[in-house]
Amino acid sequence: MQINTARLLADLRSLATIGAHKGGVHRPTFSDDDMRARHWLVERLTEAGLEAGIDGIGNVWGRDPRPGRKILLGSHIESQNHAGWLDGAMGVVYALEVARSLAEQGQGGVDVMAFCDEEGHFDSFIGSRSFIGDYTEAEADAAADFTTGESLRAALVRTGLAGRPLARVEPSRHRAFLEAHIEQGQVLETTGRRIGVVTGIVAIWQYRIVVEGVQNHAGTTPMHLRADAGMGMVKLMARIDAAFAAIARPETVWTAGAMQFEPASKSIIPGRAEAMFQFRDADVALLERLHAVLAETCAAIGPELRCKVVLEQLGASRPALSSPVIQDALEAAAEARAPGSSLRMQSGAGHDAQWLARKMPSGMVFVPSIGGISHHWTEDTADADIALGAEVYADAVEALLARPEI
Amino acid sequence: MQINTARLLADLRSLATIGAHKGGVHRPTFSDDDMRARHWLVERLTEAGLEAGIDGIGNVWGRDPRPGRKILLGSHIESQNHAGWLDGAMGVVYALEVARSLAEQGQGGVDVMAFCDEEGHFDSFIGSRSFIGDYTEAEADAAADFTTGESLRAALVRTGLAGRPLARVEPSRHRAFLEAHIEQGQVLETTGRRIGVVTGIVAIWQYRIVVEGVQNHAGTTPMHLRADAGMGMVKLMARIDAAFAAIARPETVWTAGAMQFEPASKSIIPGRAEAMFQFRDADVALLERLHAVLAETCAAIGPELRCKVVLEQLGASRPALSSPVIQDALEAAAEARAPGSSLRMQSGAGHDAQWLARKMPSGMVFVPSIGGISHHWTEDTADADIALGAEVYADAVEALLARPEI
Repeated sequence: MQINTARLLADLRSLATIGAHKGGVHRPTFSDDDMRARHWLVERLTEAGLEAGIDGIGNVWGRDPRPGRKILLGSHIESQNHAGWLDGAMGVVYALEVARSLAEQGQGGVDVMAFCDEEGHFDSFIGSRSFIGDYTEAEADAAADFTTGESLRAALVRTGLAGRPLARVEPSRHRAFLEAHIEQGQVLETTGRRIGVVTGIVAIWQYRIVVEGVQNHAGTTPMHLRADAGMGMVKLMARIDAAFAAIARPETVWTAGAMQFEPASKSIIPGRAEAMFQFRDADVALLERLHAVLAETCAAIGPELRCKVVLEQLGASRPALSSPVIQDALEAAAEARAPGSSLRMQSGAGHDAQWLARKMPSGMVFVPSIGGISHHWTEDTADADIALGAEVYADAVEALLARPEI
Repeated sequence: MQINTARLLADLRSLATIGAHKGGVHRPTFSDDDMRARHWLVERLTEAGLEAGIDGIGNVWGRDPRPGRKILLGSHIESQNHAGWLDGAMGVVYALEVARSLAEQGQGGVDVMAFCDEEGHFDSFIGSRSFIGDYTEAEADAAADFTTGESLRAALVRTGLAGRPLARVEPSRHRAFLEAHIEQGQVLETTGRRIGVVTGIVAIWQYRIVVEGVQNHAGTTPMHLRADAGMGMVKLMARIDAAFAAIARPETVWTAGAMQFEPASKSIIPGRAEAMFQFRDADVALLERLHAVLAETCAAIGPELRCKVVLEQLGASRPALSSPVIQDALEAAAEARAPGSSLRMQSGAGHDAQWLARKMPSGMVFVPSIGGISHHWTEDTADADIALGAEVYADAVEALLARPEI
C-alpha cells in the first residue's frame, strides 16, 4: 500500500523534539515530556480520523470508527532514561502512518495503541498487561517509579488519568496485533539484512546462584583445606557456561549479569559468593533442558568445592511465538520491496507483543540498529531502513486486512 | 630451662581481662584498653628486672640491664577489632615469662619487645618497621586509624607518647629475634602436630585484574557477538586457578578475594569486571614463575574473549627466611619435650619477625589454633599446647644463649 515515508520521518523527528536529550530523548513514563508526547499522539491520531484518547493507566488508544473487525497496531512511546529516539516511538509512528494513509485512501481497518510503560519505569509492561486484563489492582498499588520513587497511583492522579476507563482487548473486534521495533541488536547488521521477521519473543528464565563456603585467612589456609566460595563460584560459572555452549542453539543467550564475593577483602578467602544468571530462548523444551543442566551442574559441583550451592529461580516467563500467517505476510512484503532483505529471527528482548500474543495472533518486524546500540542516546537507524521497514509493515497490514480468516 | 607455665597462663588470662569482649578481646591500637595493656606489660617487665617503657611510636620495650649481647624476644599486644585473646599477646607473655624465669635463676640475656600496631589499625607493621629504621616520617604523617579516622600523630599526642625517643635495633647488642605466635591456620591441627617450626614467612604478591568488554543488552546480543567482561573474568580466573594448581607446591596459596561486575544488572552484559588476586609463597623463584604464568594467562586469553585484560601489580613483598640455627634449636627442643610433635612449615600470614629478619637471624614457633580460627573472638588454643609451646620456646632460647656464634 501507499504510505508517505517522508511524512513518517518528519513525524518521528517532530516527536523526538519532545524531551530531546543530545541525539536522543529523555521521556520517562508520566514525566511532563512523556505526557506531552502522549497528547501529541492523540492529536495525530485524531487528525487521522480515529477516535483517540488516553486511558486510566496511561495507554494512548486510537479506534477506527468504521464498522468491522480491526487489526491492532502499536508499540510504546515513553523512553528509557536518556535513551534513544526510536525505541518504541518508531512502532507507534508506523501505526499512525498506516492508519492515516488508509484514511486518506478512504479505507480503515486498524486500531492503534501506545502501551504505557513498556520500559518499566514503574512496573513490568503495565500498559499491555492492563490491556489484556493481566495487571491487578494490587500490582498497581505497589508500583513506583524506580528513579523518583513516585507511586503509580500518585502519578496517575498528577497526570489527571486516575479514574478514566481502561482500554481493553475486545476479542470480537481485534483480529491480530502487529508491532514494529528497532532490533536493539546486531544480527541484521552483521548479516547484511534490513528486515527482521520475528519468529517469537524469547522467555527469560532468571536465577540467583549463591555459593556458601568458609571465610578464612588467605595466608594461613592451605588450598586443600579451603572452602573458597569465590573460586568455587568461578569454577561453577565456567562449568555452566561450557555446559550451555554444548546444548544451546545459535539463538540461545545466557548471561551472568552480576557477581560479587563477600567480604570482598584482598586477604580473606570469600565465605559467600552471589551471582545473577539468566538464559533466554523461545523454545520451551530447550529452556527446560537448560534449566535441568543448570540444576545438575550446581548440584554436582557442590561437594567438589566443599561449598554449599543454592540455586534460586527468580522468574520463568513464557516465550511468545509469532503468528505464522503474520510472519509469511511480512516476509512476502519484504521480498516484494527488497528481494533477499529479510531474515527470520527471534527477539531476545521483551516487547508488548509478547502479552498481546496471549489474546490474538501477533507478530513483529525489526529494522536494523546501527552498531546494535539501544538504551543509549546514540541509538539510531538509517532513514532508508526506517522507510523500508514502514513500507514492508504497511504492505503486510494491507495483506492481512485482505485475509478475513485471521 | 625451667619456666612457670601456670604463671604464664594466669598472666595471659589476666591480660585478656583488659578489653575483654565475649571470649576474646577488643584492644585496637592506642585505644584506652590497648594503652592499659601496654602499661600492664611495662609493669610486668619491670617486676622481672628489666628496664622497661613505651617508646615514641607505641612500642613497649624491656631491656636486660646486665652487660652483653641479647636475644630479642617478642610479638605484639594490640588485637584486631573484637578478636582473639592469643594473637600477639601469647608471644609477648612467652617473652615475659622467659625474661622473668631467667632473672629468677640469676641469669639474663634477653630483651623484650611488643611491637606496635602489627594488626595494622593505623598502618602496616608500624612498630617493627620503626624499630629496624624502615618507617618514614612521611608514612607516619599519613597514617590514620581505619576504624575511627584518627591520625597516628593525634593518637600519639593523645596517649602522651609523642616526642618520646624511639626504640631502635642495635646490631652490636641484638644477636637474634624469636617470636612465638598462634598458627592462625589448621596445618598443625590436621596433621596432629603441636609445634610449628617456621621455615619462613611468605611474600604476598597482590594484583588487580580488570577485564574490559562491551556493555550490551543480554537479550539481543548473540553469544558470538559478545565481548562479555563478566564471563570473560570467570574464564580467565578459572584458567589462572588451573595454571597455578599445575605448578604450585603444597605450601603455595592463591586467592581471588574480591570480584565484581559492572553495571551489575540482571539483563545487561557486563562491560567491565574487576578482581583482586594474590598469591603467597616463601620461594622467590616460584613467586616469579607464578607471576609469569599469571601475566601470560592474562595476555593469552584477551583476544579469545574479545576483551581487554589489564593486570596491575599492587604489591610484591619479600619472603623472610628463618634462621636455620633457630629452626634447629626449636626442633631439638620440641623433640626433647614431646617427641614427634613438631612440623617444619611456612607462615602464610605476615608477622613482625619478617621485618626483624632483615636485621638479624630470626625465627618463629607456632602453636595450634583450634579449628584454625583467628581474627575472631572464638580464637583459642588448648592450655596444654600453650604450655608446651612456651617450654619449647624457652628451651630454644636457652640453647641459643649457649651458642655465642649466633
